Amino acid sequence: MALAYDGAIQRLIDAFSHLPGIGPKGAQRIAFYLLSASEEESRDLAEAISEVKEKIRFCDICGNVCETSPCPICADPRRDHSLICVVEEPKDVMSIERTREYRGTYHVLGGAINPMANVGTNDLNIPKLLDRLKTDEVKEIILALDPNIEGEATTTYLSRLLSPLGILVTRLASGLPVGSDLEYADEITLGRALAGRREA
Amino acid sequence: MALAYDGAIQRLIDAFSHLPGIGPKGAQRIAFYLLSASEEESRDLAEAISEVKEKIRFCDICGNVCETSPCPICADPRRDHSLICVVEEPKDVMSIERTREYRGTYHVLGGAINPMANVGTNDLNIPKLLDRLKTDEVKEIILALDPNIEGEATTTYLSRLLSPLGILVTRLASGLPVGSDLEYADEITLGRALAGRREA
Repeated sequence: MALAYDGAIQRLIDAFSHLPGIGPKGAQRIAFYLLSASEEESRDLAEAISEVKEKIRFCDICGNVCETSPCPICADPRRDHSLICVVEEPKDVMSIERTREYRGTYHVLGGAINPMANVGTNDLNIPKLLDRLKTDEVKEIILALDPNIEGEATTTYLSRLLSPLGILVTRLASGLPVGSDLEYADEITLGRALAGRREA
Repeated sequence: MALAYDGAIQRLIDAFSHLPGIGPKGAQRIAFYLLSASEEESRDLAEAISEVKEKIRFCDICGNVCETSPCPICADPRRDHSLICVVEEPKDVMSIERTREYRGTYHVLGGAINPMANVGTNDLNIPKLLDRLKTDEVKEIILALDPNIEGEATTTYLSRLLSPLGILVTRLASGLPVGSDLEYADEITLGRALAGRREA
């Protein structure tokens, strides 16, 4: 019995199944979509995949992904270079940019301390952060790591490493998400929100 | 502010966002995955996408997707060519093949009657089905369309079209899915299961 599709379709389904967040059914759906899509759309997708590896590199200053190093943010004289926001991944830079609340620069660590996955402080982009502190006139470092175990461990490590250098080290506020419901907040989040209460 | 990624990454995210079942967050996740994936994996994916359009065609007999026409199922002398299972899409052929219960051939309509989407009987691969009835010694046609409004309409239409030709026309059984719970079955499914009850 034919339990796999004929050649090219099965290869396409297999290739899509390897991507994160796409299961066998989703891969099949995408393969048939591409089969009936315009020549242009499927060529654009194939080219975008080939292109990204060739063109994308990491910024020599902040470690963010970019096409030119230094990246547009590091090279922008209108940004406040006395402020560095430390994040785990390039996509976190985009999340903070979307708030339109931040005018400083970034530093991308490339992950967080995670003993289970064998990621230690030596695997993170920390030496270049220390280099920036020597040359730039940095006044504040904002630690914007994920609020989970790995992020907390990395925040604690960096806080102890950087505080003795005489630079203000801050971290993002923990508390209730805007639009959420007190009833459904978990105890730890609610406890943090209480501890971090402000005058109304 | 930089609200989009630098060039190539944003183009890749946009290209993936157009695919069915992938939202902006999923597209971003895939783009960063490909950025850190091996050269080989990303090349395989790009090639599979380019290749599928060039190589895949439709079987002249049954309308299924294939690399060579007739497709491997239509060309297989060990299959029972007196039995045709009519389905909506190529992926339905694969679903039935996976049951390992069927040894006949298929006919892929390419959809179902759907007035809302302007799909009428003229848009379906029905003329070639009638051609097969003239030449092949077909004894039974199994209508295996989706059990929804469009599938039911198409089943009724085909049943009326084919029954006068003196060929046995059957349809898939409706009833409770195996492993399900009577309590959670909807009324229509439970009603069909009752109407189609068999001696135990």
